[in-house]
Amino acid sequence: MDNNNYPMLENIKSPDDLKKLQVSELPALCEEIRRKLIHTVSENGGHLAPNLGVVELTVAMHYVFDCPRDSIVWDVGHQCYTHKMLTGRYDRIDTIRRTGGLSGFPRRYESACDAFGAGHSSTSISAALGIAKAKQLKGDNSHTIAFIGDGSLTGGLAFEGLNNAGRFKRNFIVILNDNKMSISKNVGAIPKHLTGIRISPWYLNAKSGMERVLTKVPLVGAPFVNGLTRFKNWLKKKIYKTNLFENFGFAYYGPVDGHDIEEVLNALEAAKYTNKPVLIHAVTIKGKGYRPAENDPKSFHGIGRFDIDTGEPLSHSDSYSKCFGETMCSLAKENDKLCAITAAMKVGTGLTEFSRLYRDRFFDVGIAEEHAVTFASGLASQDMMPVFAVYSSFLQRAYDQLVHDAAVQDLHLVLGVDRAGIVGEDGETHQGVFDVSILNSIPNTTIFSPCYFDELRCSLASAVNDCTGLTAVRYPRGNEPARPADFTDSNINFTIYGNPNASRLIVTYGRLFAEACKAKEMLRDVGIEACILKLCRIKPIDPDAARFASGFRRVHFFEEGMRSGGIAECFESDIMKLGFSGNYRITAIEDIFIPHSKDSVALHALKLDAEGMYSIMRK
Amino acid sequence: MDNNNYPMLENIKSPDDLKKLQVSELPALCEEIRRKLIHTVSENGGHLAPNLGVVELTVAMHYVFDCPRDSIVWDVGHQCYTHKMLTGRYDRIDTIRRTGGLSGFPRRYESACDAFGAGHSSTSISAALGIAKAKQLKGDNSHTIAFIGDGSLTGGLAFEGLNNAGRFKRNFIVILNDNKMSISKNVGAIPKHLTGIRISPWYLNAKSGMERVLTKVPLVGAPFVNGLTRFKNWLKKKIYKTNLFENFGFAYYGPVDGHDIEEVLNALEAAKYTNKPVLIHAVTIKGKGYRPAENDPKSFHGIGRFDIDTGEPLSHSDSYSKCFGETMCSLAKENDKLCAITAAMKVGTGLTEFSRLYRDRFFDVGIAEEHAVTFASGLASQDMMPVFAVYSSFLQRAYDQLVHDAAVQDLHLVLGVDRAGIVGEDGETHQGVFDVSILNSIPNTTIFSPCYFDELRCSLASAVNDCTGLTAVRYPRGNEPARPADFTDSNINFTIYGNPNASRLIVTYGRLFAEACKAKEMLRDVGIEACILKLCRIKPIDPDAARFASGFRRVHFFEEGMRSGGIAECFESDIMKLGFSGNYRITAIEDIFIPHSKDSVALHALKLDAEGMYSIMRK
Repeated sequence: MDNNNYPMLENIKSPDDLKKLQVSELPALCEEIRRKLIHTVSENGGHLAPNLGVVELTVAMHYVFDCPRDSIVWDVGHQCYTHKMLTGRYDRIDTIRRTGGLSGFPRRYESACDAFGAGHSSTSISAALGIAKAKQLKGDNSHTIAFIGDGSLTGGLAFEGLNNAGRFKRNFIVILNDNKMSISKNVGAIPKHLTGIRISPWYLNAKSGMERVLTKVPLVGAPFVNGLTRFKNWLKKKIYKTNLFENFGFAYYGPVDGHDIEEVLNALEAAKYTNKPVLIHAVTIKGKGYRPAENDPKSFHGIGRFDIDTGEPLSHSDSYSKCFGETMCSLAKENDKLCAITAAMKVGTGLTEFSRLYRDRFFDVGIAEEHAVTFASGLASQDMMPVFAVYSSFLQRAYDQLVHDAAVQDLHLVLGVDRAGIVGEDGETHQGVFDVSILNSIPNTTIFSPCYFDELRCSLASAVNDCTGLTAVRYPRGNEPARPADFTDSNINFTIYGNPNASRLIVTYGRLFAEACKAKEMLRDVGIEACILKLCRIKPIDPDAARFASGFRRVHFFEEGMRSGGIAECFESDIMKLGFSGNYRITAIEDIFIPHSKDSVALHALKLDAEGMYSIMRK
Repeated sequence: MDNNNYPMLENIKSPDDLKKLQVSELPALCEEIRRKLIHTVSENGGHLAPNLGVVELTVAMHYVFDCPRDSIVWDVGHQCYTHKMLTGRYDRIDTIRRTGGLSGFPRRYESACDAFGAGHSSTSISAALGIAKAKQLKGDNSHTIAFIGDGSLTGGLAFEGLNNAGRFKRNFIVILNDNKMSISKNVGAIPKHLTGIRISPWYLNAKSGMERVLTKVPLVGAPFVNGLTRFKNWLKKKIYKTNLFENFGFAYYGPVDGHDIEEVLNALEAAKYTNKPVLIHAVTIKGKGYRPAENDPKSFHGIGRFDIDTGEPLSHSDSYSKCFGETMCSLAKENDKLCAITAAMKVGTGLTEFSRLYRDRFFDVGIAEEHAVTFASGLASQDMMPVFAVYSSFLQRAYDQLVHDAAVQDLHLVLGVDRAGIVGEDGETHQGVFDVSILNSIPNTTIFSPCYFDELRCSLASAVNDCTGLTAVRYPRGNEPARPADFTDSNINFTIYGNPNASRLIVTYGRLFAEACKAKEMLRDVGIEACILKLCRIKPIDPDAARFASGFRRVHFFEEGMRSGGIAECFESDIMKLGFSGNYRITAIEDIFIPHSKDSVALHALKLDAEGMYSIMRK
């Protein structure tokens, strides 16, 4: 499909070059961009469907506005590939998501055109409002645009942003990219409301007669557009009732066809000259222009490498998520109180089958992690058994709810914390390295961090059936690591592996155990014997585990997470209380954020792989 | 004002007793309740104005619904005093907020009628929806009611709740208590929208003619009410346009006069028999029935003891908040980039004067801590200098934004973390004991924890002028403690106080330093000499401070915060790295939540006061 021929793109070194094109040439550019997107993501993996959906919107934005003087704030930011190509990074787009290459998300350090970084959902309106207010205070008249998807609109922060932005007295533009589908299927009243707007007479008639004349505002100066806008608004109000955004104080332009570049240009021009907050409602097709992605946008939301001709992924593997989902199904069969909750990550967290088998007990709450935890706490207060499956980095959004709604009331709810640890190519905003620190600080909690699938199954069953209070089971992205043939007596509390009379003790948990086993072999090859204390329940730490460790002269704790507030520091404190007076060292993530790269590269750089452990332990 | 005569209240041992009264007797009951509220809060302190505003609404709810079978979920929960009086706790209402007495907030352990605990804002709809879904799964037909103020509606979680609740297929009731004022003045589009509804023809005509007939639905069965409701809705739609709540999928009943008990009863009866989510919009007066509180509801939101006749507080004192606010004003004078942000806590955080002097640079964003941090990050990205003043326990709501929007982008923003540490009578949901753990886990952050006002001033100036990245200055509730006469060389990094050759070292930070000084004197009296290492900058810890401590044989760290993730564990790890092999002990808050009591009582129980330190150190 890729003929390596992108003549228009190659000539766009900056948004200024884009502006040299005629409007009539833009559809051809969009075709080139789509080809390049499909080719790049088929090689590097990434967020294909979201990027294909916003090609025309992105081109139109850079045609009408002037980055970096004007600021575009992307929500989540996984749809920014076209933006990167048009803002001087086309020559490096092949490096996207690779070690040392472009990030798959907007990053301020990468370009002045990335006005604000992202990775999590629903932040764009608030950040853009901050930028717009700062500009106002500085007497800067440039424009600020928040670009947000309908899925992100289900997050409370987006509403806090709308509520605050609605009374801003100057130009402020929100572009709502409504692809009728967030990452999983959209749920709740907002999507229903958007559907209501889409099927209104205004939209259905948008292509006909006078409407066509009105919508195609010529690219002229402010006064004429303002008059026309006022007339259009008057007309619109006659046609259909007030919508949500108008209730928030926004002027509402739309819906527009987000793949009709002229229609989008006209809407943006009109918005540019409106002296108050404006929301442009653009309707797009996720995966637009690539049949496999249009047909199955969920699978093409975020994907690995794939075959362009067939759309088939180039690798298949089991995953912790799949194991989690299967375990949930078997637990639900035995226990009719078990409920599963996801914040728009049904597929990603492995809950698809559960949602089919136990529809009544499955809740997709939208991108609303705070609600998910408080809602789960409500279920738990009525003796249901809620399990919230959530990516580690997104769990960060619900810290207060974990404290205030779950733990302080000692309610029994279970967290399935997916993508715990280094996550690889998504980079710093997605690393699952804070969940242990935040959960560890909360009283009455239990945390399991299994290494192998069988441990995940047993931990989850124990979390549901045996534990009380807030209980987390955390597990990494991807597939389980290799297991030593003689490692058989795995325990969900702790396990001692190797000679308990060895001179050195490695303490670790989660998938690092597999690295520790390799390091142990490497050490043996140079005549150093090490024992491994493998924790699976990392909070509370079993006193027997601490007692065992306190007998060693050299103890080294390896932790795939932040050092501050992590388990290694707790463990140190525990064994010090027991009179330990040997040498205790910690290797964990010190005070840094981890950029995108393969897991193995990041773990190696952190000295958390077998080689790193070996190099440290042999000293 | 209090004649100790509450004949009706004394006979209400449960909501069943309330139901024995005639509707015509309820206003007299409300009068008694108000007298009791004013008397009790004048003695114990508490949230007077919110409670006075909801007397009729609370009485009406318990008249129409059957607690604990029906579930009432209070948002924030500071308005639950009447609810407590009517649900079997009248005889203990005098103990409210006192050690061992009733909590000032709903607590599940206190009564089955407290369906869900609270303390923070915007949780009620989500929690109530969880309860309602659980009931549906269990085949339980009882009712669930979320009671939420207009201020709480500015929090994103409330919108996540509305979005999810709007499509619930059964009866689900939200009562919106609109007192036209959250804790500080309400801001944003939502309050404007509510005003729009209040001044609509529907409300203005509510007392007249046919409307009166329609509103006064007699207390009869479901079918008639349903018919009437449908007719009313039809009529209403004819009169005025769709509002926000209808956009979310709710049936909207209102506005009703929240102090007209019959009007409220009718609305509740109508809601009870509506087979979908309903929002009742009740308009109330904060502080209703007590002139000083009606005139100045902000000051009577949460207060200490006061004189009933005059409304004057019985004690005046300076506070860290006041010192913070004054410092902000003087810094803003020098620096025109300095902005102050509050999440509906202008008065509480000491920013009233700032908001007057620097109106353009003052932002009250509503009860929206997430937005506050992301908005501040947006300001910072444009080189403004935002300072977000926030109570420690509410900062918990913005953990992800601190990580994802501020720290990961290394933006320079400052947090003024008020009420850090034990807060006393508000109890477990308000203790400021987690902020250190969560901030400590975030890379690139600096944390100051001053003890005295002069240190607060210097720390804040340094945070604004000298630091980079996310910087927090945290300080306790109340007034500064006494200072030893010979403590003069206070430093915002660390200070050594006492003989550096002493046998024992106390390490601490924040106001505990004053307790440590007392303990040091007590120890000297029994012949034990102790030195004190006082940290003010607690992250990063100065290597010289760790080096100093590592030379001692006995080191004891006292920390007014969670042990897990706190500074004491970090410090232990730091000195261990330096080869410390002595005895290291930590006294901090172990894995528990701290209930309400006076600060001094809580600190004593935790062995974090001078006596506790002395008893531990002399061993």
